[in-house]
Amino acid sequence: MPQRSLVELTSEDCFALLSGERVGRLAYCDAIGPVAIPVNFALAGHDIVFRMEPQNTAFASAPDMVAFEADRVDDSQDSGWSVVVRGRLTTVDLDDVPMLLGELSAGPPRPWAAGVHNVWVRIRPELVTGRRLGERADPLVI
Amino acid sequence: MPQRSLVELTSEDCFALLSGERVGRLAYCDAIGPVAIPVNFALAGHDIVFRMEPQNTAFASAPDMVAFEADRVDDSQDSGWSVVVRGRLTTVDLDDVPMLLGELSAGPPRPWAAGVHNVWVRIRPELVTGRRLGERADPLVI
Repeated sequence: MPQRSLVELTSEDCFALLSGERVGRLAYCDAIGPVAIPVNFALAGHDIVFRMEPQNTAFASAPDMVAFEADRVDDSQDSGWSVVVRGRLTTVDLDDVPMLLGELSAGPPRPWAAGVHNVWVRIRPELVTGRRLGERADPLVI
Repeated sequence: MPQRSLVELTSEDCFALLSGERVGRLAYCDAIGPVAIPVNFALAGHDIVFRMEPQNTAFASAPDMVAFEADRVDDSQDSGWSVVVRGRLTTVDLDDVPMLLGELSAGPPRPWAAGVHNVWVRIRPELVTGRRLGERADPLVI
């Protein structure tokens, strides 16, 4: 089957796609190296917001860059899209959570896993990129 | 709806789940920080194998740790699983590709995006972890 062209998405397209998702992946570095884990997220404007358990937030105290990736893959069509938001992960002060809740137009992120996810974190986007697989490409391209 | 318990997966479970997938996400570090991108992959034994375009492999020359993540999420059930394989990314010598092809029981990885993906890379697992969402947890746990 011919492969598909890669189409760059606009920032607007990226956030439109993210607004339809509930799960993405946080990519961050720990003592071993880079790693990615799924998280339940919500959008506050263009910020990625999610909730963590206190014991998992050691890395959130450092103002290091992280990435948030979401994608949707269609196995039957060899198709799909992927969006990556890069920025710094910061913890939301407890006092600021009520205001943050007001910014979450689709409601708060709801972790599926049991546990006390009472630490709210956000990623303010510094770089947003996205790509989707487009039309079938010239079959001569391998 | 009550949340679900998190169940740690055995390494055997992790590879059984990976063997049913065609797409995962490579987490690596570039000059900005950690990032994750979807890749079409295949398993050679327990090694994660995929193909890249030559212009995208600058980071593959450094023997840095990377991670490979795959997951399957069921929005309707708030359920799913995630597997993370961590190890070093190495380029496969062209001379060794024919032998590698023989190790790919499910056939070679086939990139969906157009382009010349003639650089084969592999991740040899050094650390394999996985979790799945299990039974509904005690509704008192928030």
